Amino acid sequence: MALAFDVAGLTDYLHEIFPQVKDDFSIDAMDEQGLRMRLLTAERHLRPGGTVSGPSMFALADCAIYALILSRLGREALAVTTNCSLDFMRKPVAGADVIAEARLLKLGRVLAVADVLMYSEGLGEPVARASMTYSIPPKR
Amino acid sequence: MALAFDVAGLTDYLHEIFPQVKDDFSIDAMDEQGLRMRLLTAERHLRPGGTVSGPSMFALADCAIYALILSRLGREALAVTTNCSLDFMRKPVAGADVIAEARLLKLGRVLAVADVLMYSEGLGEPVARASMTYSIPPKR
Amino acid sequence: MALAFDVAGLTDYLHEIFPQVKDDFSIDAMDEQGLRMRLLTAERHLRPGGTVSGPSMFALADCAIYALILSRLGREALAVTTNCSLDFMRKPVAGADVIAEARLLKLGRVLAVADVLMYSEGLGEPVARASMTYSIPPKR
Amino acid sequence: MALAFDVAGLTDYLHEIFPQVKDDFSIDAMDEQGLRMRLLTAERHLRPGGTVSGPSMFALADCAIYALILSRLGREALAVTTNCSLDFMRKPVAGADVIAEARLLKLGRVLAVADVLMYSEGLGEPVARASMTYSIPPKR
Repeated sequence: MALAFDVAGLTDYLHEIFPQVKDDFSIDAMDEQGLRMRLLTAERHLRPGGTVSGPSMFALADCAIYALILSRLGREALAVTTNCSLDFMRKPVAGADVIAEARLLKLGRVLAVADVLMYSEGLGEPVARASMTYSIPPKR
Repeated sequence: MALAFDVAGLTDYLHEIFPQVKDDFSIDAMDEQGLRMRLLTAERHLRPGGTVSGPSMFALADCAIYALILSRLGREALAVTTNCSLDFMRKPVAGADVIAEARLLKLGRVLAVADVLMYSEGLGEPVARASMTYSIPPKR
Repeated sequence: MALAFDVAGLTDYLHEIFPQVKDDFSIDAMDEQGLRMRLLTAERHLRPGGTVSGPSMFALADCAIYALILSRLGREALAVTTNCSLDFMRKPVAGADVIAEARLLKLGRVLAVADVLMYSEGLGEPVARASMTYSIPPKR
Repeated sequence: MALAFDVAGLTDYLHEIFPQVKDDFSIDAMDEQGLRMRLLTAERHLRPGGTVSGPSMFALADCAIYALILSRLGREALAVTTNCSLDFMRKPVAGADVIAEARLLKLGRVLAVADVLMYSEGLGEPVARASMTYSIPPKR
């Protein structure tokens, strides 16, 4: 399926519609297979001890998959998270960026499904896994 | 199972160990059956349009269940979120507090499981549902 | 929401559309709040040691929720399972029937969400928990 | 991590401990990265219309991941499914075998996590996705 944006265009569009997460995430790469997003880990994402918080990991997975869906559907699209399953498997490296590798498993008329593996930068084993379903409302 | 804290004591303890969420959540009630926690909805929890964000809902569910487990296990306890399943079912009421009703389904030697229904204050139908598993490390 | 069937009528309808599970499940009760279904535990549902198998627990949850949705939507309705989250919390009692208590959390235009607690008959604590989402195709 | 079995040895061991699923599943391949298991689709796995049933898909995912864990831990190991998340994404091809591609994401001291994509043989897009957690009891 053709991509509706390049990395710069999708980044601009996300900043436009979600200005509040502008400093949290950046898109590292994107192609026909998937999308790689980075959590720019800062003090506000951490729990005591320096671990990246659960809500920040959730936000990264959700944002990566949302961006992935937009990359196919383009500017007019809406997509609403309806279901999320998350496994927290390892303690993230204190202070390191977290990299999410998202892949699209289904892009249907009313539902999209994708999953994501999340890695502390420089660590070979994933720290978390998520799968999410989005409902795609009909175009107005 | 006897409760290890009353509401005031558990609130103090949560503020001590998670000072960064002190202004986000309050415990409304707690008994043998479960725990009710409130997201004190503020600007920082919202998405454009006034909807409470997904990460804020995740944080509320996680915090309510964590508090519920602590209410049984007491001060020395550790508990680490290992799995979460979330269904987002309705759009939260713009700006309203979100109330989480958590119930403990299992408190084993190594795993605890609980689920939670979340309501926009004043709305009869739940806006979201979550179930979570926590790993309980052995006491040192 | 008014019920489209009584217990006898829904039972007949399930036998008509799913003749292959006729001997596996029975509806114990049904009202505005939810539906109680029973797995009529037999040799074919067991693992070595007498435990009810995971696939049998999945089938019970799926069938209970499907029946619950039909009880509201009636004869013409279609509903397709799109997501399931299951927690296995305790070992079922060897050979005992398993009782599923299902409740409907959302019945929307395109998606329905319900959850279920499952109990070995006579045991106070749930052996498993499930939540499921169904897609409701538009009527032809 | 070294494999504790080859395909023939693991197949024999599964038949020994789960004789009742002997005719349902076969291991197609196995290496350091993962394990491929096949549902030998037969009449008993089908729903009206020829679709592979949800419980059969659950059983395939569970069995593939269980075999994958055993392939690392060997003969003495126990592993108990504690959590499962499943997305049903497409209608399986009527009557076709279903192929599960399982990969291990974590093999810890007390918990193992794996995920699986399931394909109707000959179809490029996955029909379902599952992730599962297993509890690994201490050796006696």
